[in-house]
Amino acid sequence: MVLDDAALKKFGFIPRKAKDAINIDPLQTGGKLTEEASRALLEWGDGYSVCDYCDGVLDLIKKPPIEEFVHSALPEFLNTDVARITHGARESKFTVMHSMAKEGDYIVLDELAHYSSFVAAQRAGLNIRTVPHSGNPEYKTDVDGYATVIDDLIRETGKAPALAQVTYPDGNYGNLADVKRISNLCHRYDVPLMVNGAYSVGRMPIDAKKLGADFIVGSGHKSMASSGPIGVLGVKEEYAGIVFRKSPTHKNKEVEFLGCTVRGAPVMTMMASFPHVVERTNRWYDEVADARWFSSRLEDLGIMQMGDKPHNHDLMFFEAPVLYEISQAAKKGRYFLYKEMKQRKIHGIKSGLTKYFKLSTFQVGRENLKYIADSFEEIIDKYQKMG
Amino acid sequence: MVLDDAALKKFGFIPRKAKDAINIDPLQTGGKLTEEASRALLEWGDGYSVCDYCDGVLDLIKKPPIEEFVHSALPEFLNTDVARITHGARESKFTVMHSMAKEGDYIVLDELAHYSSFVAAQRAGLNIRTVPHSGNPEYKTDVDGYATVIDDLIRETGKAPALAQVTYPDGNYGNLADVKRISNLCHRYDVPLMVNGAYSVGRMPIDAKKLGADFIVGSGHKSMASSGPIGVLGVKEEYAGIVFRKSPTHKNKEVEFLGCTVRGAPVMTMMASFPHVVERTNRWYDEVADARWFSSRLEDLGIMQMGDKPHNHDLMFFEAPVLYEISQAAKKGRYFLYKEMKQRKIHGIKSGLTKYFKLSTFQVGRENLKYIADSFEEIIDKYQKMG
Ligand SMILES: Cc1ncc(COP(=O)(O)O)c(C=O)c1O
Ligand SMILES: Cc1ncc(COP(=O)(O)O)c(C=O)c1O
Repeated sequence: MVLDDAALKKFGFIPRKAKDAINIDPLQTGGKLTEEASRALLEWGDGYSVCDYCDGVLDLIKKPPIEEFVHSALPEFLNTDVARITHGARESKFTVMHSMAKEGDYIVLDELAHYSSFVAAQRAGLNIRTVPHSGNPEYKTDVDGYATVIDDLIRETGKAPALAQVTYPDGNYGNLADVKRISNLCHRYDVPLMVNGAYSVGRMPIDAKKLGADFIVGSGHKSMASSGPIGVLGVKEEYAGIVFRKSPTHKNKEVEFLGCTVRGAPVMTMMASFPHVVERTNRWYDEVADARWFSSRLEDLGIMQMGDKPHNHDLMFFEAPVLYEISQAAKKGRYFLYKEMKQRKIHGIKSGLTKYFKLSTFQVGRENLKYIADSFEEIIDKYQKMG
Repeated sequence: MVLDDAALKKFGFIPRKAKDAINIDPLQTGGKLTEEASRALLEWGDGYSVCDYCDGVLDLIKKPPIEEFVHSALPEFLNTDVARITHGARESKFTVMHSMAKEGDYIVLDELAHYSSFVAAQRAGLNIRTVPHSGNPEYKTDVDGYATVIDDLIRETGKAPALAQVTYPDGNYGNLADVKRISNLCHRYDVPLMVNGAYSVGRMPIDAKKLGADFIVGSGHKSMASSGPIGVLGVKEEYAGIVFRKSPTHKNKEVEFLGCTVRGAPVMTMMASFPHVVERTNRWYDEVADARWFSSRLEDLGIMQMGDKPHNHDLMFFEAPVLYEISQAAKKGRYFLYKEMKQRKIHGIKSGLTKYFKLSTFQVGRENLKYIADSFEEIIDKYQKMG
């Protein structure tokens, strides 16, 4: 590629087509910016903006109140001893794995863990054992499986795993495992537990201490109405010295964060959205009610919701034999659903999917949810009449 | 901290005071957004925005043309075989160190390396040897020192270091070391060389192959008119399989990137600014002329520029005995300079500094530079008359 005018014209400003659609992609519903965050983004957009006010440690900046946010507000929000901002949930997980375990150590993941948990462990050179789930249709993580896997590892390797992790909720079915029981089990073996709250922190009330979480992970761009990449990490005091250890040569720099992480606008968007985020977690039960209402509307159409039932989260996985059947005959084949939805300005069910798909109802609102459910109904009617 | 209304009111939208000042902080001059990037930021601000178009690999997204940007435009721009986007220069460096070296291995850094190079090596569990510089006033990195240090290491440990690095230019004096000679020396020992171009990529023409760089690192928020955190990494084909190795379980996910890095707006700002960035690197010699002109204006006032002379970069370090002397008597003491500059809407010399400070003239423009030099003159006159 020669970087001449013709080539460069491809870059520059590019409009975002999905911007004005109703977005039910689980990745997107909790990351939509508030009005305040959009303003913060423009105000703090330039390069390293926040570093204008830095004396060497990003999370100790007093004005704007990043220190107060990271060292007071976030720990309170998560109910954890200490907190930091990171580049995202996966980077939080890697940081914990890399500091808590040594190459070759074992860690335990739930089988439903996000791929980035597996990859983070691989990057840290760790071995992985998984705790199974119950399979179709509930996909429930086997809580006692944590004890079984830890027992197995002790028997085989002579020592307990360095860390266990549970995904709360998992990113496929939106199931909320019984973390309290899992942490009790793990702690019996002195195995610290990391809770991946990528889909919970910023959506629903989270209390790390009540859950017995030694580490709590959140994703700003996924669930805290923040512009990515940004995440949070809460750590129990007991492990803070390990995870937040300082450089031997540069006394105020934390090694795992390479000195500092989010040196730019994302932290200002997280702070800008924070009042809204706190408030919306307090209204979580309305979100659960919306999810259940939507699930039952789809079930009436023959689209079956998998996972916990009644469901306790906005992230839901559906099995839709009725749509699959239509796709077999439809002119656009398996793309018919995506096209129909697109025409209705509904975005988020991946192009080509019909039989299985996931979606999120978070912050979509009852009126839009009704419109989406009606759209499903309309589409099914239309194709069934044609068929 | 209780998260009540009073506490939450501290967050929300917070204005950026330094926004309208002339900013000569070296961290800031190259990261200022273009008009296009500001628009892209607002357009793509929401959470995970770009992931709407992702089939599982961020840098393979076709629309918007992230794939073309990462896999064609960036390699061309850097003249390197393969490129990726990362969270920043330090994350690029850690990625290379972590994949190229094993815990306990040695790497070689120039003594002038940024703290984040040291911390990245520490995070990867590596041992560090440094190549000295010539000290005051030139601070020239001892090119032959690379051979000496490598020889020493071979003698002491029985093997060559896993990697060498040079900072181009260094972040204190803006000195441009003779990288071509350094790479020749390193390659004689089969030691790959990483060039930290945090202050060059996006400012001046960079040709990794011509420099003999096996790895080239850039910082988007520092030098590519991008909203942070974002960086770039260019890699020679020979090492691409190591640095970009894939997960054994998740075949399309690159382990060192935890699957993907900049899943949000920053990459869209980098793409939006890219045409401008390409163009400005072609006008680099005007920037060098501006830097030299500014340097000589300050030298006329008794403020001495350290480092390469005549200077070849916009980042400059000054020693100002005249300002230090004033600070000894001034009412505001060592804060007088900051206050006087602030009154004149000039930001970027750290509060409290008078005797030594660094600044950058990049993209400031001759007119503003004249205003800044005149301001120095005016301030010195004013205090000398008072004294
Ligand atoms: C359960 C779960 N955890 C973690 C992640 C990754 O989040 P982040 O992008 O903040 O690393 C995802 C992303 O989809 C997820 O679904
Ligand atoms: C020479 C040099 N390298 C690297 C960095 C770090 O850049 P980034 O924030 O992209 O990691 C800096 C930051 O000041 C620097 O001066």
